[in-house]
Amino acid sequence: MYQDHLASFAVSSHTHAAPPHAIAPLRIGMLGLGTVGAGTYTVLQRNAEVIAARSGRRMELVMVAVRKLARAASIVGSTVALTDDPYAVVNHPDIDVVVEVMGGTTLARELVLRAIANGKHVVTANKALLAVHGSEIFAAAQAQGVVVAYEGAVAVSIPIIKALREGLSANRIAWVAGIINGTTNYILSEMKTKGASFADALADAQAKGYAEADPTFDVEGVDAAHKLTLLAANAFGVPPQFDQVHVEGITQLDAVDIAFAERLGYRVKLLGIAKRHLHGLELRVHPTLVAADHLLADVNGSMNAVMVKSDAAGLTMYYGAGAGSEQTASAVIADLVDLARVMDVAHQHRVPALAFQHSAIAALPVAPIADVETAWYLRLDVARAARTVPQVMAVLADAGVRVRLLEQFDHADDAELNALVLLTDPVQERVLRAAVAQLEALPHVMGFASTLRMERLA
Amino acid sequence: MYQDHLASFAVSSHTHAAPPHAIAPLRIGMLGLGTVGAGTYTVLQRNAEVIAARSGRRMELVMVAVRKLARAASIVGSTVALTDDPYAVVNHPDIDVVVEVMGGTTLARELVLRAIANGKHVVTANKALLAVHGSEIFAAAQAQGVVVAYEGAVAVSIPIIKALREGLSANRIAWVAGIINGTTNYILSEMKTKGASFADALADAQAKGYAEADPTFDVEGVDAAHKLTLLAANAFGVPPQFDQVHVEGITQLDAVDIAFAERLGYRVKLLGIAKRHLHGLELRVHPTLVAADHLLADVNGSMNAVMVKSDAAGLTMYYGAGAGSEQTASAVIADLVDLARVMDVAHQHRVPALAFQHSAIAALPVAPIADVETAWYLRLDVARAARTVPQVMAVLADAGVRVRLLEQFDHADDAELNALVLLTDPVQERVLRAAVAQLEALPHVMGFASTLRMERLA
Repeated sequence: MYQDHLASFAVSSHTHAAPPHAIAPLRIGMLGLGTVGAGTYTVLQRNAEVIAARSGRRMELVMVAVRKLARAASIVGSTVALTDDPYAVVNHPDIDVVVEVMGGTTLARELVLRAIANGKHVVTANKALLAVHGSEIFAAAQAQGVVVAYEGAVAVSIPIIKALREGLSANRIAWVAGIINGTTNYILSEMKTKGASFADALADAQAKGYAEADPTFDVEGVDAAHKLTLLAANAFGVPPQFDQVHVEGITQLDAVDIAFAERLGYRVKLLGIAKRHLHGLELRVHPTLVAADHLLADVNGSMNAVMVKSDAAGLTMYYGAGAGSEQTASAVIADLVDLARVMDVAHQHRVPALAFQHSAIAALPVAPIADVETAWYLRLDVARAARTVPQVMAVLADAGVRVRLLEQFDHADDAELNALVLLTDPVQERVLRAAVAQLEALPHVMGFASTLRMERLA
Repeated sequence: MYQDHLASFAVSSHTHAAPPHAIAPLRIGMLGLGTVGAGTYTVLQRNAEVIAARSGRRMELVMVAVRKLARAASIVGSTVALTDDPYAVVNHPDIDVVVEVMGGTTLARELVLRAIANGKHVVTANKALLAVHGSEIFAAAQAQGVVVAYEGAVAVSIPIIKALREGLSANRIAWVAGIINGTTNYILSEMKTKGASFADALADAQAKGYAEADPTFDVEGVDAAHKLTLLAANAFGVPPQFDQVHVEGITQLDAVDIAFAERLGYRVKLLGIAKRHLHGLELRVHPTLVAADHLLADVNGSMNAVMVKSDAAGLTMYYGAGAGSEQTASAVIADLVDLARVMDVAHQHRVPALAFQHSAIAALPVAPIADVETAWYLRLDVARAARTVPQVMAVLADAGVRVRLLEQFDHADDAELNALVLLTDPVQERVLRAAVAQLEALPHVMGFASTLRMERLA
């Protein structure tokens, strides 16, 4: 009934032979036509020919559900059927796959589960949905024998889910760590380059469109934690364990610490880090010092990069844009091309949703952050008194915190104070925190210490 | 008959549930047990459990063909059947897939074609074989409906073939460029860091095992050209066109140019570059100046990195070890895991060998190097005469070569000479070469000019 409205996806240049039209097209229904949806529509149209030449199958956008029909019509014209009822898409008898790019976790969850129950495959770029409701959704997909693909949910332009699930399938993965939120990386790059405060850098990022009006999910690290949840699941064969991620954002970050770190040869990045230990995992998102000559240090602006350490392949890294309309479309359509190949074969011939066979996925205990061992950057504002430094060093030594480097800087605002910066050897967080509490109680130490974790990632 | 010798791949830890043993194992025959073969054996054993938990299928190494049986037995013991007749492997009735890791292009070609004719799938890490005989081999595989997989042939630890073929399938790819030979990158890193000559850096690389006794294929750029051939084929839907690649190695590179480039903010890397134009391709391997703050500039030692520019995803980069026993095994086994999923389905459900449907692959004309436009680094050793620089600038201006930057350095060995270094705007190579010939004929210009191409790659 919607056949009249089909997009024809005509293209001008003809460098590749036509695909075999004997094979039925992949019939797509889309939920949402915002930034990602419009990008997906645009790329499906512009690159219809190369996509078909690769996949061997034509992509046919059957129907799009939107909230604002008029706005949507201004994008797709009359080439695609539009509806304001998303259930019309997920219940549509002539749709093979539902592309969920509407966002949110309530209605999106309902619609995705309905689509699955209707035997439809799902492609989504919704990291929050899968980080929170992934276990329920993947179990439903497994039971129905349908695919739920989500390359666009993590570091959009980079095929990192594919690299983890397929490219590194021979490996035991030791850790995954990366810059997986473009907004915070843009803000941190600005703070470093211009010495700006967090508030000023955020305002600049909002003005330039790199941060949303409500930036909470980005700057508090929640978005990165959603992505880290999915990376960890694919790396270690665990279900999404979002509620187990230790999350710290960048809102408390002081520009002075970024500047001192820089002078000591380090850069501050918001990293998502997932490590596998013998009996459990570390899952954490926090600002982190990395060496200035580390590859991650040169990932600037809104770019993303993910590093993977595995036992056979060693260290590999994947770099690209972490957001954007067509950048996300690239991932969504790659999932559609994969699906076009395997939609007609039995489930066991497909790549499992979370890298491991569904029956092999088992939760692992996640270490409390207090148990996690990292090196630390500490900054104390101290009085210029003769005994201050020996006292600080004594407290740390007695607590079992080894100091690797000590440097005093002039305090920016107060000529009576020094900024005492210390870099430590790796030490358990509970030990470090206890020592810092003692330091803050010393008579010559003013206010609270700045504490930032450091990672080598080699 | 070889069942007695099967490897059991027992592993100690049991973090994942056993795979479904109802599905028959993937039965593997291997040609060669050198560095890559031994690494593949080791990783298949050590990681049998995670590999099966991902693939849903056990990997069963049935037979290995080697030249030296005693040496091979010292590696695999009695766990695997050994033979010194490679035809015993490719003709074996109980082998599904032949892993070709013997190298060479003559016997390897025969054996691979025989395996395909016998209806067996092939996994190979042999870049030379596919760059030179790829069209024949892929056509035979297409006709037989079998898979020829080769992730290990390019930048071994990095799943770059998968990224190009599958991860970026929505995109028109504009160019692929990368550091795809670890030996030369190690040598260039040493020349830059230590100011060593090419000969000394090569000797050091040989002593440390980063270069072979006969390093010709590496240092002359042939190995990089093999890999570039396969990258271009997957990026653009063209057959392997190795004989069309313009190849320059690093043997003629002067340490003084590396030092001058560094002082001007550039680093010299051996790059493989494949660009798509409206009506054809550029395929070239040569030493190249890239900006010191470019991501490729920080790819040091024997590491590899490949950048891809595509219309939707934008710029993405993939980084990892470019050689090594287990690093290559990681790619070979990833191909085996992919195969384990799709060996029992029809050919159209699999990823095409060269990214595009076989029927859609068509050669594109490759531009002669004289037609290619790049920016240039020029060094002229010039007499300290008043009119030298104006003469040089006049020749270049008349030839249509625009100078972007000019700097004179003291000549290292001759107080009467200056090293005149020029960076140009992009200009066709034939124009540049004609101008350089004129420059070399000037009275105050001594000897031959150093010429190196520059790339922005953004």
